[in-house]
Amino acid sequence: MKQIESIEQDFLELLKEMDSYREVIALAQWDMRTKIPKNGVEQRSEVVGFLAHKLHTLETSEQMKSFIDRLKGKTTNEIIKKAVEECEETYNKSSKIPSNEFKEYVMLQSKSEAVWQEAREKADFALFQPYLEQLVEYNKKFANYWGYEDNVYDALLHNFEPGVTTKMLDGVFSKLRTSLTDLVEKVKSSKAKPDPSVLKGHFPKEKQEAFSVEVLKQIGYDFDSGRLDDTIHPFEITLNGSDVRITTRYDEEDFRMAVFGIIHEGGHALYEQNVSKDLARTPLASGTSMGIHESQSLFWENLIGRSKSFWEHYYELFRSYAPDSFKNVSLDEFYRSINEVKPSFIRIEADELTYALHIMIRYELEKGLINGDIAVKDLTDLWNKLMVEYLGIEPPSDREGVLQDIHWAGGDFGYFPSYALGYMYAAQIHHTLADEMNIDKLVASGNFAPILEWLSKNIHQYGKMKKPLEIIEDVTKEQLNPDYLVEYLTKKYTAIYQ
Amino acid sequence: MKQIESIEQDFLELLKEMDSYREVIALAQWDMRTKIPKNGVEQRSEVVGFLAHKLHTLETSEQMKSFIDRLKGKTTNEIIKKAVEECEETYNKSSKIPSNEFKEYVMLQSKSEAVWQEAREKADFALFQPYLEQLVEYNKKFANYWGYEDNVYDALLHNFEPGVTTKMLDGVFSKLRTSLTDLVEKVKSSKAKPDPSVLKGHFPKEKQEAFSVEVLKQIGYDFDSGRLDDTIHPFEITLNGSDVRITTRYDEEDFRMAVFGIIHEGGHALYEQNVSKDLARTPLASGTSMGIHESQSLFWENLIGRSKSFWEHYYELFRSYAPDSFKNVSLDEFYRSINEVKPSFIRIEADELTYALHIMIRYELEKGLINGDIAVKDLTDLWNKLMVEYLGIEPPSDREGVLQDIHWAGGDFGYFPSYALGYMYAAQIHHTLADEMNIDKLVASGNFAPILEWLSKNIHQYGKMKKPLEIIEDVTKEQLNPDYLVEYLTKKYTAIYQ
Repeated sequence: MKQIESIEQDFLELLKEMDSYREVIALAQWDMRTKIPKNGVEQRSEVVGFLAHKLHTLETSEQMKSFIDRLKGKTTNEIIKKAVEECEETYNKSSKIPSNEFKEYVMLQSKSEAVWQEAREKADFALFQPYLEQLVEYNKKFANYWGYEDNVYDALLHNFEPGVTTKMLDGVFSKLRTSLTDLVEKVKSSKAKPDPSVLKGHFPKEKQEAFSVEVLKQIGYDFDSGRLDDTIHPFEITLNGSDVRITTRYDEEDFRMAVFGIIHEGGHALYEQNVSKDLARTPLASGTSMGIHESQSLFWENLIGRSKSFWEHYYELFRSYAPDSFKNVSLDEFYRSINEVKPSFIRIEADELTYALHIMIRYELEKGLINGDIAVKDLTDLWNKLMVEYLGIEPPSDREGVLQDIHWAGGDFGYFPSYALGYMYAAQIHHTLADEMNIDKLVASGNFAPILEWLSKNIHQYGKMKKPLEIIEDVTKEQLNPDYLVEYLTKKYTAIYQ
Repeated sequence: MKQIESIEQDFLELLKEMDSYREVIALAQWDMRTKIPKNGVEQRSEVVGFLAHKLHTLETSEQMKSFIDRLKGKTTNEIIKKAVEECEETYNKSSKIPSNEFKEYVMLQSKSEAVWQEAREKADFALFQPYLEQLVEYNKKFANYWGYEDNVYDALLHNFEPGVTTKMLDGVFSKLRTSLTDLVEKVKSSKAKPDPSVLKGHFPKEKQEAFSVEVLKQIGYDFDSGRLDDTIHPFEITLNGSDVRITTRYDEEDFRMAVFGIIHEGGHALYEQNVSKDLARTPLASGTSMGIHESQSLFWENLIGRSKSFWEHYYELFRSYAPDSFKNVSLDEFYRSINEVKPSFIRIEADELTYALHIMIRYELEKGLINGDIAVKDLTDLWNKLMVEYLGIEPPSDREGVLQDIHWAGGDFGYFPSYALGYMYAAQIHHTLADEMNIDKLVASGNFAPILEWLSKNIHQYGKMKKPLEIIEDVTKEQLNPDYLVEYLTKKYTAIYQ
């Protein structure tokens, strides 16, 4: 019988092969979103399809199954143990779905995305309805294949935020919703509203970029292990732990898009750049979940980047790059304006106070769909009703309502809650960090290193070695608790809106 | 027994797999030379190694051998027939070398490149000598494995310019050498020398780029099927036929580097962009040989780009981008200066009149090495002797002499002649084209389309469907003939140097 060490070595070799495919797929995608000439796309799409198929074949191979069987419960190497668990998850996820059903589903997904695009343009949900009905049915079926303890929707949540359950979300969201709607009401009735029109004015792209690069460097983004490019849809992508790229979009009439966008993507990138190099070339070498990832981007974008102390440090530098009109805007005016609260129809345009309410609407609806409590045909009415209930506004059409997000069209049910979890995680982590150091003082003096070190030591380095809730409990010494987000928002927005 | 059509379909599927690897390897290389952050290189190199190995495995697989056996002499599809020939070449090339020897050789190559680098820095050939000796021995051995009819060196030539033999090169080079050295003598003794100092002056990168992009677009480079970036070492790279990228290097004190460099790489790119799309995803979808490729880049760079008529069309536009000092430079002065002839030590800095002489020196030496007529230890002396004989100058050290090129250190013997062949092909093709249309008139009016169409119809579209000498004979209705290059250079440089 083969020595366990020798099996482990062979297993690591297989992981390297998988990782090589992952890296070139990521490179090809980065290139397709940033640099590729338009006529090159057609063949490139075929190439990416081929590579993704090769990777999928390895992930679900008999060879992989055999490694799992021979190593599970036998290896004493912690990294290999976790890698085996990760591979088993992926293996099971694929192998439990009959291959003909999976093929049909993949075709349905790509068809649905195209139909959704058209339906959104025409603001006509009825076009999309039959596709969404099928997508819901497939997801219900898959959820049953994968299995769950309590609620069928749990099986879908597991794909994005393992460990998080419907029961848990029902609890935290109901607390959060009450507090947020109260706060939004207070803000609405406040007489002391900030004036975001002071933020407008022509701000050349080059100057926005120069300022943003300064910020990125200071918060600790390593340009020797990454780069910044332009795109329509900003993103962070990890080619490898020493090549973590981000993109942004510049609006020359509104610097907020690029500046806060870069800090947001930079937050994702700091996570990826600081995963332990011991995990390189394994499936563990990346952020542990959508929600923890989002906690890092939101931590930097909002809890740091939209804080008063951040601009105490940066406002002078910012003004040296900004249009002259900012000379007449006081730091206080500026700070209040970048934190304006205003209920909006579109999730991705929402401020940090109302954002989680957008998520809760989607959560209630997709949970209902998967549980069979809601019919797809009633979705528009229910969406609009919840918008009025949670945010006090009603979308003028499906384009600004139920058709605004691509997620469901791509079959992604269980994904949305991660965004709201990211907010709660970020606030809870921030609260713990504040017990250990004076964050405001550090930020106001531009000394971000202790903060990044702490995040790296407590979160980043582990990659997927710890599950999301394990991270939260290890770091904050308690379970997920929405009170910290409420506390943070209440304090901040009560001060801004007096 | 399987129908031939079904075997053909399976074969095309295998070719697509190979092509997918080829495309992502090309993308990874492009990225490594243009965009990658420095810390990303280490892991990326491993990834590229893995992909190259996968490709090599397919090229030399039992499955490939079986396709060759089942399709060779049986398929009636012309594209598949040629693709089988191409695959058989690659298969044989690899399978004839014992795998342990190949492994040793690959290690020797990478070691040798590092040693060469050091030797060149120290201008010390003795450091590099033992490595070069081994490289020569391996290449002799490989040449014998591959086989040849007349001269062992032919087997190496075949790798870069199939069909071209030592005997053929001896013939054309001896004619060419006499004519070129005579011409260089005349130029040297001329009293009417152009003054290239008028070409100097600060010329901002952005302006050089803007002008060059104009030129590229007008000669027919399709920016929807390619892009232009900056690098230290300019190159053209084909990701796929609709994604053909070029790079250049800007010297703000001397526009010639970028402007002529871009036209040169653009010439390579026009070839690749215009290969028939019927050949896509097969190994035929690329230029047929190094020499024919070089003929296209040199055609555009020199025969068009350094012609009087080209600048009759462009000089006004050029001056609108160029520094003010060019306002005092007449078109005639400008034209003569960009065509200055001056024997130089370094091949890549050579003008079009002396370039082929540099190649002939390398040809004589590598032919002698492979035939056993020359010992590696005598190389410096022989190099310097030939430099004096051919160009009338003696390198001050090995750095400017025998150690200047990387080719031998990488084991590339038989490669150099392609450069000189490119010059001869270009002039011979130009001569035929001139019989069919008034090139000068078209160029002077900026009407490049008929020229590109003609080149595409007669050369580009075929990709590797025709061998290099087949192209030359089909297009020009005669065999390779160095007289056209001599005629072109004599006419041009007699006029410039009166």
